[in-house]
Amino acid sequence: MKNPLIGLVAAPFTPLRADGSLALEIVPALAAQLARNGVKGAFICGTTGEGYSLTTAERRSVAEAWRAAIPPGVALIVHIGHLSLGEARELARHAQEIGADAVAAMAPSFFKPAGVRELAEWCRVAAAAAPRLPFYYYHMPAMTGVTLSAAAFLAEAGNRIPTLAGVKFTHEDLDDYRAARALDSGRFDVLFGRDEILLSGLVHGARGAVGSTYNYAAPLYQRILHAYAAGDLATAQKAQAEAQAFIDIMKRHGGLAAGKAIMKLIGLDCGPVRLPLRTPTPVTVAALRADLTAIGFFDYASVV
Amino acid sequence: MKNPLIGLVAAPFTPLRADGSLALEIVPALAAQLARNGVKGAFICGTTGEGYSLTTAERRSVAEAWRAAIPPGVALIVHIGHLSLGEARELARHAQEIGADAVAAMAPSFFKPAGVRELAEWCRVAAAAAPRLPFYYYHMPAMTGVTLSAAAFLAEAGNRIPTLAGVKFTHEDLDDYRAARALDSGRFDVLFGRDEILLSGLVHGARGAVGSTYNYAAPLYQRILHAYAAGDLATAQKAQAEAQAFIDIMKRHGGLAAGKAIMKLIGLDCGPVRLPLRTPTPVTVAALRADLTAIGFFDYASVV
Amino acid sequence: MKNPLIGLVAAPFTPLRADGSLALEIVPALAAQLARNGVKGAFICGTTGEGYSLTTAERRSVAEAWRAAIPPGVALIVHIGHLSLGEARELARHAQEIGADAVAAMAPSFFKPAGVRELAEWCRVAAAAAPRLPFYYYHMPAMTGVTLSAAAFLAEAGNRIPTLAGVKFTHEDLDDYRAARALDSGRFDVLFGRDEILLSGLVHGARGAVGSTYNYAAPLYQRILHAYAAGDLATAQKAQAEAQAFIDIMKRHGGLAAGKAIMKLIGLDCGPVRLPLRTPTPVTVAALRADLTAIGFFDYASVV
Amino acid sequence: MKNPLIGLVAAPFTPLRADGSLALEIVPALAAQLARNGVKGAFICGTTGEGYSLTTAERRSVAEAWRAAIPPGVALIVHIGHLSLGEARELARHAQEIGADAVAAMAPSFFKPAGVRELAEWCRVAAAAAPRLPFYYYHMPAMTGVTLSAAAFLAEAGNRIPTLAGVKFTHEDLDDYRAARALDSGRFDVLFGRDEILLSGLVHGARGAVGSTYNYAAPLYQRILHAYAAGDLATAQKAQAEAQAFIDIMKRHGGLAAGKAIMKLIGLDCGPVRLPLRTPTPVTVAALRADLTAIGFFDYASVV
Repeated sequence: MKNPLIGLVAAPFTPLRADGSLALEIVPALAAQLARNGVKGAFICGTTGEGYSLTTAERRSVAEAWRAAIPPGVALIVHIGHLSLGEARELARHAQEIGADAVAAMAPSFFKPAGVRELAEWCRVAAAAAPRLPFYYYHMPAMTGVTLSAAAFLAEAGNRIPTLAGVKFTHEDLDDYRAARALDSGRFDVLFGRDEILLSGLVHGARGAVGSTYNYAAPLYQRILHAYAAGDLATAQKAQAEAQAFIDIMKRHGGLAAGKAIMKLIGLDCGPVRLPLRTPTPVTVAALRADLTAIGFFDYASVV
Repeated sequence: MKNPLIGLVAAPFTPLRADGSLALEIVPALAAQLARNGVKGAFICGTTGEGYSLTTAERRSVAEAWRAAIPPGVALIVHIGHLSLGEARELARHAQEIGADAVAAMAPSFFKPAGVRELAEWCRVAAAAAPRLPFYYYHMPAMTGVTLSAAAFLAEAGNRIPTLAGVKFTHEDLDDYRAARALDSGRFDVLFGRDEILLSGLVHGARGAVGSTYNYAAPLYQRILHAYAAGDLATAQKAQAEAQAFIDIMKRHGGLAAGKAIMKLIGLDCGPVRLPLRTPTPVTVAALRADLTAIGFFDYASVV
Repeated sequence: MKNPLIGLVAAPFTPLRADGSLALEIVPALAAQLARNGVKGAFICGTTGEGYSLTTAERRSVAEAWRAAIPPGVALIVHIGHLSLGEARELARHAQEIGADAVAAMAPSFFKPAGVRELAEWCRVAAAAAPRLPFYYYHMPAMTGVTLSAAAFLAEAGNRIPTLAGVKFTHEDLDDYRAARALDSGRFDVLFGRDEILLSGLVHGARGAVGSTYNYAAPLYQRILHAYAAGDLATAQKAQAEAQAFIDIMKRHGGLAAGKAIMKLIGLDCGPVRLPLRTPTPVTVAALRADLTAIGFFDYASVV
Repeated sequence: MKNPLIGLVAAPFTPLRADGSLALEIVPALAAQLARNGVKGAFICGTTGEGYSLTTAERRSVAEAWRAAIPPGVALIVHIGHLSLGEARELARHAQEIGADAVAAMAPSFFKPAGVRELAEWCRVAAAAAPRLPFYYYHMPAMTGVTLSAAAFLAEAGNRIPTLAGVKFTHEDLDDYRAARALDSGRFDVLFGRDEILLSGLVHGARGAVGSTYNYAAPLYQRILHAYAAGDLATAQKAQAEAQAFIDIMKRHGGLAAGKAIMKLIGLDCGPVRLPLRTPTPVTVAALRADLTAIGFFDYASVV
């Protein structure tokens, strides 16, 4: 894996059968879709992948399926976060063993670290189980309740975790984003994790971005990246506005679960979500499809 | 197990060696301490037991050690909550297999149930893996971020989960506590989970209480229960004030981690806590001991 | 005024005309209702009185109307809290000038005090404008966002504010309540502010209680107080359960605004609420009345 | 006033004497500083101006002093927000009477509007007291606790408030910012209120920005605006990074109170802050000055 990650990284949905079991036979098609769209990485078993709703054994199976299917040029980043540090270490060890390119972990969200020292120590022990892989801290306060600053974490952990590569930053605090990017002359890779405001990330120094909508709408975001790189802000803003329009619809119809339903609409059926999430009813999916059609979503989505 | 649980239920600490591995050889002494103090149940692998910081395999081992050690007359309730419903089901299945008396689960706290319907459905599937054991929902919003009303949950789940016994209620909202107790003419067992205000629970209908301080200070709380039952509120209030005094000290010196340190001070060394919690330094433990001594704690604690 | 306040203290609604202007001619009837029901004090212009929604001139007028109308034996406590310390001081000065019995103030809730030191200093300056009146800090974190512990405030302010009488405590944290009551051997008056769990207050040492429902349902709460004093907990619990039943209905139909509508239902029309609150529609009021009738509320309410 | 406001709008500090009383004689120097730096507006008596800590009479005096001092080409926007709608209306009426260019109001933050309908209705009544002045809703959830979406407010209020000009948006949710800007083909003026991430605002469509640091560091931000307009993002980012560096220092030394201390350091002594804020000690001010000097702040600040 080239470090830093530059460009789009998708956070794949975990394909399930109707009974909720893993449908790993879908993974190759998901991986091919990423390669076809110029996506540079797959960040698996995180939020979009419902990693926390899988068993440890299932998480290993998903990682192995991706390892087998992923095309050259697409990096494999495995989320190994777990409330139990022991399970996190087992997932990290396994990720290295199967040849993943990097590991990442969210903060434990039941017992929350009291400060960046405790967070860094937890991450250090987790990362040490995959000593040859770059480690990313996955910062997502809205879900974990751990609101410690990402920049402060990096400052604390930078000299403590030899494999520390950076942060996957999924939060609105762009001041902290900028500070994390700027630390030690830009030493760390800070992957931007809010698809709906990707332009904000770029303008504060982002080079790579991780998101769920890059699974099905990557061409639109590539337009943002290319226009921004070419100094054509007007085109970038127009594409960003289109992205926001469909994300608004997706949020209105259920968020993550609606996103998973979109996968079926573009031809890559990933099945239901797991409890405690609620799989959209056919009525909701029909409304979702109608609303997306009305704004022309299927013209720029990557339909298979 | 007699249902409802009446009297004190302790939430045991999980004994660890200095290197953080399980010290299951301590469990018999912990169990004997409970029996000696008239404690009616052991609620294992919950918050105090750092259940979420253990691996699934470790949680099974802890449950087996308690099953082997627990004396007659002390019920064994196994917390099987897990972010992954699959792992929770495996823990429930195992609890029934080894002969536990009941299971309990907190709400999943990463993906949070959108409403009581989703919460009840999640609990239903978890409980169904131990179809012969009473099921308790463990309500602890301060840790899980799931703030759905316990009374509303019971109203929703009452006809959906055949094994539903009640709630372990660890929250300050006594109005919700009262409503949960009163529902369907007092159908449900609502175990009170705030040791520092046990009297508030009693006055709103509590019969059983689950707490961490019942591991080492049960005699003091027995005094509250007996005085309250005898209509001697003055004595009950005096004992409650003593409880609050030592709990204040415990909180000031680290909360759960300080509570675990108290176990060593009374002669039942349970070792360190796991990351991301921080084990108190010897200096902190010395201060904790001094503060507890100053208020006479060791006169009424259950020193081994 | 006798200090401490023992028994029930009502927080009166501010009577308004249909156009939203003050209907001060109603105040004598409100005051007579309190005396008739054995209520020991009127806590005016607080939350129930929509004090913050009135202009400073209006708050002075309300205070004067109460001063003129209040019968002997009912203490007049004027809430003088204001985001502007200058306005708060003017209200305190005025309260003393017209002969109020005490003043009270919530913490400023826009710029929030960083700690109890800042809060105590703010209260000191406010209280100093009424140097002959007892001062109560009105603790209501759910509305103000100021979550500083009441016990910590009293410990800090006790030697700094010569007129400090105590706290009006409207919060669920009964551990903090108990600590505030216990401080310095029970030096401070800590008025309990959650009508729906009055019994919890009593069991932790409350002698006086301030609430909105004492305006119209005082007889029910007097039953709680008398039964509790007589050691008859069963009767007290039964009355508390009745209180909770009607409070649940009141909350479901709009909370404060529904409470104000209840005043009309018992024969003391206090008019609409002010923006940004929403006055219940006739349909909502009809449903409120029906639900209250169904549980027998009007049998124990104090109908005029 | 030209509508929309384009460029920088400063939120002036309210100058106070050492005893806390108004020092209105400083206002002309503050106004001249704005004009000298190309600032297009003065947004007075908001957060930076400690408007809520002033009495209504003081707020009128401050507005009059600014009206008298403000040079041509600098618009005067008066914050008229108040917990009491009656007081807010009086401030709005006065603002129009003295010839202000616009009024603005935060949501009432004690009784919080239940939805955008209640918020819009409250704003409608407030705005109607200044029927000839453009009205801005001042969106600042971190201080008010009112988290209703700004875009949803505009959608609701757009046809209800004839004078509605837009929003002063002081929040991190750039997705909502973008939606507010995009509504009805860009109908509303959405002033960006986070100086530290001004570039994020620009990239999502901001034309005007309101902030406290434009009082003393406007030249730095003008560089951002000009570079951005010229398509020179590298220069804009460099200036933004410089801004963030001094803002970090300001926050570390007390936030708003430190900002007011900076005014003295650049030669425009605005005196202390009011309770419940805490005026920095001389030691803190010395450290603030040293830290600012170390990063070269005084080279690009607008020193008088």
